[in-house]
Amino acid sequence: MEEKTFIKKITALLKQAPEIKVGPGDDCAAIDLKTPDGRFFLTAADQLAENIHYDPKQSSPAQAARKLLKRNISDIAAMGGIPKYAILTISANYSEQEFLQFFKAIEDECEKWSVSLCGGDISASASGAALSSLTINGWVEKEKLCLRSGASPGDILFATGFFGASFPTNHHMDFEPRLKQARFLAGDYTNTMIDVSDGFLTDALQLAEASGLGLQIDTESIPLRKGALLQNALTDGEDYELLFAASPEKAAELEKKWQFKDAPLSKVGVFTEKHPGLAYDASQCNLCEKFGKGFDHFSGKND
Amino acid sequence: MEEKTFIKKITALLKQAPEIKVGPGDDCAAIDLKTPDGRFFLTAADQLAENIHYDPKQSSPAQAARKLLKRNISDIAAMGGIPKYAILTISANYSEQEFLQFFKAIEDECEKWSVSLCGGDISASASGAALSSLTINGWVEKEKLCLRSGASPGDILFATGFFGASFPTNHHMDFEPRLKQARFLAGDYTNTMIDVSDGFLTDALQLAEASGLGLQIDTESIPLRKGALLQNALTDGEDYELLFAASPEKAAELEKKWQFKDAPLSKVGVFTEKHPGLAYDASQCNLCEKFGKGFDHFSGKND
Repeated sequence: MEEKTFIKKITALLKQAPEIKVGPGDDCAAIDLKTPDGRFFLTAADQLAENIHYDPKQSSPAQAARKLLKRNISDIAAMGGIPKYAILTISANYSEQEFLQFFKAIEDECEKWSVSLCGGDISASASGAALSSLTINGWVEKEKLCLRSGASPGDILFATGFFGASFPTNHHMDFEPRLKQARFLAGDYTNTMIDVSDGFLTDALQLAEASGLGLQIDTESIPLRKGALLQNALTDGEDYELLFAASPEKAAELEKKWQFKDAPLSKVGVFTEKHPGLAYDASQCNLCEKFGKGFDHFSGKND
Repeated sequence: MEEKTFIKKITALLKQAPEIKVGPGDDCAAIDLKTPDGRFFLTAADQLAENIHYDPKQSSPAQAARKLLKRNISDIAAMGGIPKYAILTISANYSEQEFLQFFKAIEDECEKWSVSLCGGDISASASGAALSSLTINGWVEKEKLCLRSGASPGDILFATGFFGASFPTNHHMDFEPRLKQARFLAGDYTNTMIDVSDGFLTDALQLAEASGLGLQIDTESIPLRKGALLQNALTDGEDYELLFAASPEKAAELEKKWQFKDAPLSKVGVFTEKHPGLAYDASQCNLCEKFGKGFDHFSGKND
């Protein structure tokens, strides 16, 4: 069974308290904690495993620490929110020196994003492989909340930055989560957004499926990272860029006001009523059949 | 370096936002989210590793799942709080059947404690060993907040339940976190409490050190779990019982009103100004020198 199908089967088991406005299945859960300003509390977690998410021969504990925090911040960004509090657990047979490097790096990265690392747990590793897990908590104003659902037919699919070849270029360690860009977009230009970790096609389809629509992708307009082919851009994953829906009315204003030069904006497709749940090109060719969907974290295989 | 010393070194690196009223170093962090009722938000995380925290030959994925949630609930209990929301990450090479058993068990346990599992991540394991991490979030009323600090000289050290031999008796999998008991105690009888995971002596000393006091322990009054010797009771760990300070004035009323028959109450010591940071018996013998402190999760060794 592929990751997405299996996750759906699991999340169907999980009952949610009524104040949980967005439960498992989006980038973060959103909880109404009844604060006077009516913001939603956001919470999400991601893990980072040696030999799965990075190669310990190429990346130091400090670099792993930074990636762990940044990929979680990317999830908060995808919901339109602001990260605030992190909780970290790590199981590793690091030396004291390596543990200190790990924590100095994550604290440094936390300060950069105004996040407080306020708790967690450290354990030796029975297997020898380092595995860390970080829960990020934050806030989002109700009107800025971005879900995977909510796109309308005719909405344009926009992307920030470049796609593909994240591993060979080391982008997957060195990226900058698109927090500023997401805060600029959320509420004013979109309420339908995702960050690309599993791959352009897989994550674009999350928006399409959750919105009950299809996606006509203009494959020639997908910005390729240096060294990437279209195949890479569509399926490699770990780009940590944003994909979002904006109405044609908002699109022109957005393109005019966009000032993030390190993360150029691209129109890469349009949401349609045709072929709900599928991504296809101008010749109606199903892109998943043509290119596959990319790396499946659950099965550990390329689909 | 031993776990406690190293954790102190790490937590000293971590800057905290001003609304974080209790940061790293207690059972949970406590955050003032400015809700109208002035409650503190609690957050903590613990992990569960195959071959460290349980033997996969003896315990199923479902049993591991229950333990993972319960040891986190025990941390919320130690702060006097109520658990509400959980986030789970797991890295394992389970079959689909085993993953489903794991999630069915944790959902079942969540429902028992009125907790919503609202997010997380699943990944294959590069090492083959299962490792899961759970962040528990909850609330505590300000006046019920229990810290490790705050005991006064002359306060009595109370314990719930029994100690020692948690592994051979399988108590470490089958225990019931002392949430009801903690809620009964918090604010009315104590604001100084800890749950015993690392071992009676180690965790009792956390209360003593944080309060700047010593502890005279009445070793004969420590209730032994079936099959446990005093050495086991003092150092085995994973008892998931409560240790707390109560004033002599409150103690008599507490003993009269205590109705939790499965978790009998024992007076096991008294906080003193003598020997701050040490635990000793009636003959002034330093108990850590005599018995050691127990299993160190960080070094993976007995001290």
